[in-house]
Amino acid sequence: DNKKINKENIQLPLTSIEKAYISEKTEKYLPKKSFGFRIVGQIFDNYVIVETGDRVFIIDQHAAHERIRYERLKEELNLGLLQNVEIILPIIIDISLEDKKRIEEKREILEKFAFSWEDFGPNRIRLIKVPYEFLNFDPVSIENLFKEIISEINEKDLEVLEDKIIKSLACHGAIRSGDVLIREEMEALIQMIFDNQIPITCPHGRPYIWEIKKEELEKYFHRK
Amino acid sequence: DNKKINKENIQLPLTSIEKAYISEKTEKYLPKKSFGFRIVGQIFDNYVIVETGDRVFIIDQHAAHERIRYERLKEELNLGLLQNVEIILPIIIDISLEDKKRIEEKREILEKFAFSWEDFGPNRIRLIKVPYEFLNFDPVSIENLFKEIISEINEKDLEVLEDKIIKSLACHGAIRSGDVLIREEMEALIQMIFDNQIPITCPHGRPYIWEIKKEELEKYFHRK
Repeated sequence: DNKKINKENIQLPLTSIEKAYISEKTEKYLPKKSFGFRIVGQIFDNYVIVETGDRVFIIDQHAAHERIRYERLKEELNLGLLQNVEIILPIIIDISLEDKKRIEEKREILEKFAFSWEDFGPNRIRLIKVPYEFLNFDPVSIENLFKEIISEINEKDLEVLEDKIIKSLACHGAIRSGDVLIREEMEALIQMIFDNQIPITCPHGRPYIWEIKKEELEKYFHRK
Repeated sequence: DNKKINKENIQLPLTSIEKAYISEKTEKYLPKKSFGFRIVGQIFDNYVIVETGDRVFIIDQHAAHERIRYERLKEELNLGLLQNVEIILPIIIDISLEDKKRIEEKREILEKFAFSWEDFGPNRIRLIKVPYEFLNFDPVSIENLFKEIISEINEKDLEVLEDKIIKSLACHGAIRSGDVLIREEMEALIQMIFDNQIPITCPHGRPYIWEIKKEELEKYFHRK
């Protein structure tokens, strides 16, 4: 069946489950289901241009990928599907005594997100496990991610805290602006957006799609 | 020298002289001289997208090429450089007696444009010579071009008439909307536009460039 073939084509790095959910809070959605599209190219090393029918989308690659990742991670968390993995070369992180105490208090939540660590001296911890998709990240990136999460750990509302952690994971694992994408990566990104009807803003509320209608161009160029 | 190399790279069909003039009547011009650009792609089989510095241009391929051709043909006419060529397989055109009389009256002007014909029966002429660049055009296209010129031949003001004929030549020889361009053709087109500082409207006054500034995108996507 057609849908299956599309899903199997998705090759974007770091996505283990492709299905993402529609956020009920967001009003605007993309058009229903997968339809044909053509990658035109990338501009300013930051935006993917795609043509579909009589519309062209300029897509903020980081914000779009962040949104895809956010929806997926949220679902994985809800379904208990977040996988962790032991790091082969352990990462040592310098940390204050206060921070150490704080993350210890929230250990249960952080372990839900597949982080695990052990003491490594008075001002240090050693990360043992991280979410599966960060396995191949360099140690500095993982350290930065974990430090960002530590900085948010004081949040009292557990639901808000979880959402903040999901956002951090979504952002840190996403394609960055400035990444030059090859055609296959652009195709995978756009396919996921079109397949999954994800909201058209990033998790922080920034829009990631600029739409240009054929009609607009025709009007501007006096073709109609 | 750099400029020469650029000129030699131009491969767009139908252009024998690349240099085109700035129309003094037009207020807005493209930025000075050749600078780096990158072809992003083509959309709606009609517009070429090009990135240059912190700007992206969406360019109406037909209107842009028409303008380039118009400027060049005007200059060739002024310098007496319009070349004609004998057609190997002559083109027979059905024509009314009135039209035949009218083009005969304007034979001198039409020969300036490299058209030449002879009688071929009471309601027919046989085209013998056409402007050089129409040599490889199919007979129907040449017939259509010549008929368009005939339809304008009543124009009393000779300067206006010449301008109308130039516009017809420019339009009929230009890349059409709907032509799928290969990268080299897009590159040649954009190179000519950038090299020659031609006015940013087509000869009929339609704009052919839609500009998107990096800054605009950054603002829209809340990146600034």
